[in-house]
Amino acid sequence: MEKKISKAVVRRLPKYHRYLTNLKESGVKKISSKELSDMIGFTASQIRQDFNNFGGFGQQGYGYNVEELLEEVKGILGLGQEYSVVILGAGNLGSALAKFNDFERYQFNIKALFDIDEAIVNKKINGITVHHTSELDEFLIRNEIDIAFICTGNSVAQELAEKAVSLGVRGIWNFAMVDLHLPSSVIMENVHLIDNLFTMSYFLKSK
Amino acid sequence: MEKKISKAVVRRLPKYHRYLTNLKESGVKKISSKELSDMIGFTASQIRQDFNNFGGFGQQGYGYNVEELLEEVKGILGLGQEYSVVILGAGNLGSALAKFNDFERYQFNIKALFDIDEAIVNKKINGITVHHTSELDEFLIRNEIDIAFICTGNSVAQELAEKAVSLGVRGIWNFAMVDLHLPSSVIMENVHLIDNLFTMSYFLKSK
Repeated sequence: MEKKISKAVVRRLPKYHRYLTNLKESGVKKISSKELSDMIGFTASQIRQDFNNFGGFGQQGYGYNVEELLEEVKGILGLGQEYSVVILGAGNLGSALAKFNDFERYQFNIKALFDIDEAIVNKKINGITVHHTSELDEFLIRNEIDIAFICTGNSVAQELAEKAVSLGVRGIWNFAMVDLHLPSSVIMENVHLIDNLFTMSYFLKSK
Repeated sequence: MEKKISKAVVRRLPKYHRYLTNLKESGVKKISSKELSDMIGFTASQIRQDFNNFGGFGQQGYGYNVEELLEEVKGILGLGQEYSVVILGAGNLGSALAKFNDFERYQFNIKALFDIDEAIVNKKINGITVHHTSELDEFLIRNEIDIAFICTGNSVAQELAEKAVSLGVRGIWNFAMVDLHLPSSVIMENVHLIDNLFTMSYFLKSK
């Protein structure tokens, strides 16, 4: 049985996933919390505590089995199952996301893009069809979609996210520069690129 | 004189910037901390405290002057001055970033892209030339560049970021899926898209 894991631990899991994947690909079989700590930058005690949260593998004096630990982290992250995705907005960012092969590698399968720009509707991006946004309702009714990437302009982001959620989408990955207001049951992550850049300019200016 | 502002406040500033910009564009002249709170979701007392950090504008019973406050937030964020940018890696993501007009709007001026793919070297993306990565040294010596966006593959991200920093770049915006190790004087922000998506899959699976 999995214990309830705090949000802080969950946010560290993808990083563990990244490092363990690299270790496995480099042929490393086992690793101590101290060695992981030197690489990742979390303290060894933090790492042991995190891994204890979900079963605790390490053996005193032996360390962790990299492959087992990686499989465990994958399972906890919900990887190894398929997620169906639509991308709303097929402009620069939406198109770029459609071309990322890493999504497919982790079974986030992009089923369709949607846009209102007639110049790209019915075209394909990386083999995935761009549909007119007016077809979104029907598409979501006919297909079980887990996640919508919101790559539209700010003015329509809320409306389209609401529509997606009302038709069964459970996860919203929001790239629009607005905060979306959605039912608390919806899993939402935000990537506000400009906010990130402004944090940089603050620190650049302050130096 | 500006007081030293905590990192937590700095991270909220871009959000204030976003809301105040929208308010100004909607013609709103003044706003109370209570009204801002209802929109942004921070408590009114948090908002008053944040604004007190940098001079404190509000007048009891009157509220904040939207335009003045926006100008103040911009100044603190280091906006209103120009930043010169290079994009390292002109693949899907690097190209998409070169096409974002919001960067130029805020005076983050993209001067050049760099890539090793002969098929795109010397081509232009949104009017900006793609140079061969072998020309990076000379370009950075001849041009004062503030920020490098790292959009390369994981294997070369560290090496190129180090080179950029050694030749005067002060800010690194890292989109590669690796953690970069750079001198602590470097301003670095990370956008690990896959990490973000994995956090979503965790919560989707847990529901």
